[in-house]
Amino acid sequence: MGDVNTILEALNTLTVAGNVFFLCVMGALVFIMQLGFAMLECGQVRKKNAVNVIMKNMFDWCIGCVSWLFIGSILCSSINPSDFLDWWIKIVKATPFLENNGIELANWFYGLVFAATAATIVSGGVAERIKFSAYVIISIIITGLLYPLFVYLGPWGASIVPWHDYAGSLVVHGLGGFLALGAIAALGPRIGRFKDGKPIPILGHNIPLAAFGAFILAFGWYGFNIGSALALKDISGLVCATTTLAMAGGAIGALITSKKDPLFMTNGLVAGLVAICSGTDIVSPIAGLIIGLIAGLQVPIVYRFLENRKIDDVCGVVPVHGTAGIVGAILAGIFGMKALGGVGVDPDSVMHIVSNPDIDLLLSQIIGSIFCAFYGIVLGYVVTIAIGFLCNGLRVGREAEIRGLDIVEHNLPAYPEEDTLANRES
Amino acid sequence: MGDVNTILEALNTLTVAGNVFFLCVMGALVFIMQLGFAMLECGQVRKKNAVNVIMKNMFDWCIGCVSWLFIGSILCSSINPSDFLDWWIKIVKATPFLENNGIELANWFYGLVFAATAATIVSGGVAERIKFSAYVIISIIITGLLYPLFVYLGPWGASIVPWHDYAGSLVVHGLGGFLALGAIAALGPRIGRFKDGKPIPILGHNIPLAAFGAFILAFGWYGFNIGSALALKDISGLVCATTTLAMAGGAIGALITSKKDPLFMTNGLVAGLVAICSGTDIVSPIAGLIIGLIAGLQVPIVYRFLENRKIDDVCGVVPVHGTAGIVGAILAGIFGMKALGGVGVDPDSVMHIVSNPDIDLLLSQIIGSIFCAFYGIVLGYVVTIAIGFLCNGLRVGREAEIRGLDIVEHNLPAYPEEDTLANRES
Amino acid sequence: MGDVNTILEALNTLTVAGNVFFLCVMGALVFIMQLGFAMLECGQVRKKNAVNVIMKNMFDWCIGCVSWLFIGSILCSSINPSDFLDWWIKIVKATPFLENNGIELANWFYGLVFAATAATIVSGGVAERIKFSAYVIISIIITGLLYPLFVYLGPWGASIVPWHDYAGSLVVHGLGGFLALGAIAALGPRIGRFKDGKPIPILGHNIPLAAFGAFILAFGWYGFNIGSALALKDISGLVCATTTLAMAGGAIGALITSKKDPLFMTNGLVAGLVAICSGTDIVSPIAGLIIGLIAGLQVPIVYRFLENRKIDDVCGVVPVHGTAGIVGAILAGIFGMKALGGVGVDPDSVMHIVSNPDIDLLLSQIIGSIFCAFYGIVLGYVVTIAIGFLCNGLRVGREAEIRGLDIVEHNLPAYPEEDTLANRES
Repeated sequence: MGDVNTILEALNTLTVAGNVFFLCVMGALVFIMQLGFAMLECGQVRKKNAVNVIMKNMFDWCIGCVSWLFIGSILCSSINPSDFLDWWIKIVKATPFLENNGIELANWFYGLVFAATAATIVSGGVAERIKFSAYVIISIIITGLLYPLFVYLGPWGASIVPWHDYAGSLVVHGLGGFLALGAIAALGPRIGRFKDGKPIPILGHNIPLAAFGAFILAFGWYGFNIGSALALKDISGLVCATTTLAMAGGAIGALITSKKDPLFMTNGLVAGLVAICSGTDIVSPIAGLIIGLIAGLQVPIVYRFLENRKIDDVCGVVPVHGTAGIVGAILAGIFGMKALGGVGVDPDSVMHIVSNPDIDLLLSQIIGSIFCAFYGIVLGYVVTIAIGFLCNGLRVGREAEIRGLDIVEHNLPAYPEEDTLANRES
Repeated sequence: MGDVNTILEALNTLTVAGNVFFLCVMGALVFIMQLGFAMLECGQVRKKNAVNVIMKNMFDWCIGCVSWLFIGSILCSSINPSDFLDWWIKIVKATPFLENNGIELANWFYGLVFAATAATIVSGGVAERIKFSAYVIISIIITGLLYPLFVYLGPWGASIVPWHDYAGSLVVHGLGGFLALGAIAALGPRIGRFKDGKPIPILGHNIPLAAFGAFILAFGWYGFNIGSALALKDISGLVCATTTLAMAGGAIGALITSKKDPLFMTNGLVAGLVAICSGTDIVSPIAGLIIGLIAGLQVPIVYRFLENRKIDDVCGVVPVHGTAGIVGAILAGIFGMKALGGVGVDPDSVMHIVSNPDIDLLLSQIIGSIFCAFYGIVLGYVVTIAIGFLCNGLRVGREAEIRGLDIVEHNLPAYPEEDTLANRES
Repeated sequence: MGDVNTILEALNTLTVAGNVFFLCVMGALVFIMQLGFAMLECGQVRKKNAVNVIMKNMFDWCIGCVSWLFIGSILCSSINPSDFLDWWIKIVKATPFLENNGIELANWFYGLVFAATAATIVSGGVAERIKFSAYVIISIIITGLLYPLFVYLGPWGASIVPWHDYAGSLVVHGLGGFLALGAIAALGPRIGRFKDGKPIPILGHNIPLAAFGAFILAFGWYGFNIGSALALKDISGLVCATTTLAMAGGAIGALITSKKDPLFMTNGLVAGLVAICSGTDIVSPIAGLIIGLIAGLQVPIVYRFLENRKIDDVCGVVPVHGTAGIVGAILAGIFGMKALGGVGVDPDSVMHIVSNPDIDLLLSQIIGSIFCAFYGIVLGYVVTIAIGFLCNGLRVGREAEIRGLDIVEHNLPAYPEEDTLANRES
């Protein structure tokens, strides 16, 4: 029996190390989405705000690491103060994290990159006019409080409001998108964005850069969705395929309703990826394609709907993350049904309303969507307004906004050699 | 014996999950090559066509996913209509893909990213003058028909024409390069590319971007070649090393024959990677370096040879993917010989011609190369001509070509803020 | 017992293949740091030298592969000529590398990407004025001789000077940074960098690009630090977490001392990553954050200190890699102590000085730092001076430097369409 014990030990070592490897690789892929967002957003703003938008992205990642370390990662699963205290005592030492190849911290890291994703979405909506200091505080509150609390309430935490959300169509993207909507409403539109009540498009400065960012996001999304298995043994090729097909569907969908607009196609690709997160593990390949397609189709429509209501969503994060998240969550409830080729879900993982697993799933998805939109919009609005009081105004001054945030906030133009030239033109 | 059965089961679970993990990670790396191509090609075209080239890349990926789902992935291994029907019935459900961690779809994904690579190569050759609608149809035909049929005929499918092609010097890159050659010949050169029979170079707009694209391609190539093991247990460190050395050789080779031209060096690096695909698993490290070097050396020479025949290959995809693919396939037949330090191949995997395994290998590589070039050029030409009839002309009009495809086809300049300025200059 | 043997074999196969997979994925991540450096440096130089800096990066990678193949990889562990001879005979054949999934070459590859990192750091310091030919020779000497010899002397080789350096704060980054300092001192500042003894800042041409490069570096760093386990079974989630936290700390630290400068924040992020390499496996999460913070805080301070001494370090590689490496090594000796929550190290892996493991660790870190700085500065200076004699001068001529290296050395501007415009402006 000695042999058997040796084998069991070796097998266990390999399994644990494999899980850490899995989480680290998948987490690194999700991390690179920070670059994807930075490029996507940078391309969609004007030259004069290009550095500012990157600063916001880099800073929310960095401060997110800190707030996740001290508060966020615990708040996701507990609101008990003693759990926080235990954690703070623990992280002063390295030794508690040596066991099982430090898998506890690998999980911590994988959670962090999700939190940072939720936070960074907001920056794309509020770009080109918000004060850097105000954004910094919003960002700290999101990764330290609003995101973890939402996780706690939802299916990944204490499941007070349960629904099926494999990789976070709502938990991550929907929340980010609706927080952005609340913040945008509190902030108001950029100067010149609306004239006599009509929207005037403000084009970004580098369309190829935005498209490259979308490719990077898609690359990282494989880590986002496949890694959501959390343990190697639960990895799913179905997730890989539905993710891919939803991305394709999203781009094609947005291409159709936008009449071949390259930027909408780019954002549609991302919207398809957002939408599939929820049901990626339970819907068929064909359903993945359809979910992406519908998410893509709605991007230009929702964008224009909001635009007509004077919502100045610079990078379109509300249709791409917010409403696409809801589309995805609800369609997961439809195509996830066994009756429609889906896998169905464990009845205990969703609400018990009518005692029919398929209908309960769908109702849970709808309730989750409403909860997410409500939570995001209200808290996004309230927190932003409150920070406005704290920072003596949310927005940079009129002249500063016209001159651009790069010079005013950071004293560094994005393309220093062009600066003389650019100044002469304007 | 209960213990042993438990262990066997655990071991099997780990092995299957490990394979899915392996295919997903390697496939994600190959996916990012789409970004590499987009950057490499975008940098090599003029500003006025920068969005168009990215739209082509993004679209061929998206439509490739769809055509691969419905047709391509089955056609690679079967021409039996009932296999297609079975597959279409299957993909409406999620449950058939839960077995073995959905490894069937992980393999499907890994096949898809290869098909998309073959398709996207063509866009670099036909850039700056082809109608978007015409390109879209070509792209659908490549991923849905021409590539899978070539796979079916070649060593990865029914092996009707067998040769050794570990990661696809010919199956993927050679095919893409020669399809491009046929399409370019059908399409004709850009306006102003040749004057009084002499070539006038048209420089791209962003050389650093092209170089960054090559680095991304090289990064993805580790997924392309190492992942070609298809199962974790067959992974090969030799593949990793020969891939690396061929990349270095390719860049150095092109640097020499181009007299230190940065863009040729960039493309030479890619050519080295193309060439090593075929024999990466059977040649020595030194041979890998030499294969890359020769592939790099030929890039400027072949490029100029074609240029003198009025072939306007915008991004040099024929020397980089086409002839470099042939160089690699044939050199795999030479350096793969046991007599030259190679591993040799299973005699049953190549043609039986003279009953000497080494000579049979070499002859198979030569015949495969001829087959690939013939198949690619003829079908690339014929299909493109046919699409020209369908689309009422292959090319945008003269004025549109001069103004640039971004405005004419997509109504969006790549760098909107520069547009006024650029217009004034021209 | 048949079953048990079958299991043992299967388990062994999986373990070996898993290690090769681990090394290849982690190595590919480290490889992509080449792109990160290329982008980070390209953004920090002027347009007229953008191609040159990328050529340097691409070339040092390619030539590094070759010199690592023939000399470097052996020199790291042996100075015995017969070991070189054996290796040269071995690499002519493929068969010696089939055993154990070619893990020997996977390790070779993982070593190579580290060597290439050390070499490419230097290019950021000597940019915008060094002759391409001179740089090429320096680069060959670094990857073929200076880096491997330093590895041999230090803790990764024969441990003649031992200290704790898990992922190479000193072995890789410190060495690169101090070699750069020696080379910069030998080379002298760019024209116009100092006027009447006062530093005149020369801004780069693309700040967003530099920031994107830093994100790519950070992404690759997960491969750099996590992969340093070298075998899957030794992977550590602690490494993943401390790496992440040091990155965040570094960016925040530099933001503070630079008064919110975006470029210093970007470089501070990298400095945090440099500093954590040494003790990433033995310090607590909190310590990781502090190490990064201190490394970030010192970047602007050291940069200005050197600037005031007329050291023209174009991309700030001395503070980012050199002194940050020392900060990291020494703080690893402090926070790695068991008394301060660290794991401590095997007393046999560091020097025996006072027979207190904690104090011995700290002293070893200090001695290693001094050794690294001395080795780097002296050899960097001497080799650069010597190459100056060999190349008939280290620098391009005055006119060439003013016109830019892209045209003069490579006959290709980075942004060809802007060239007419740019010429007119200057």
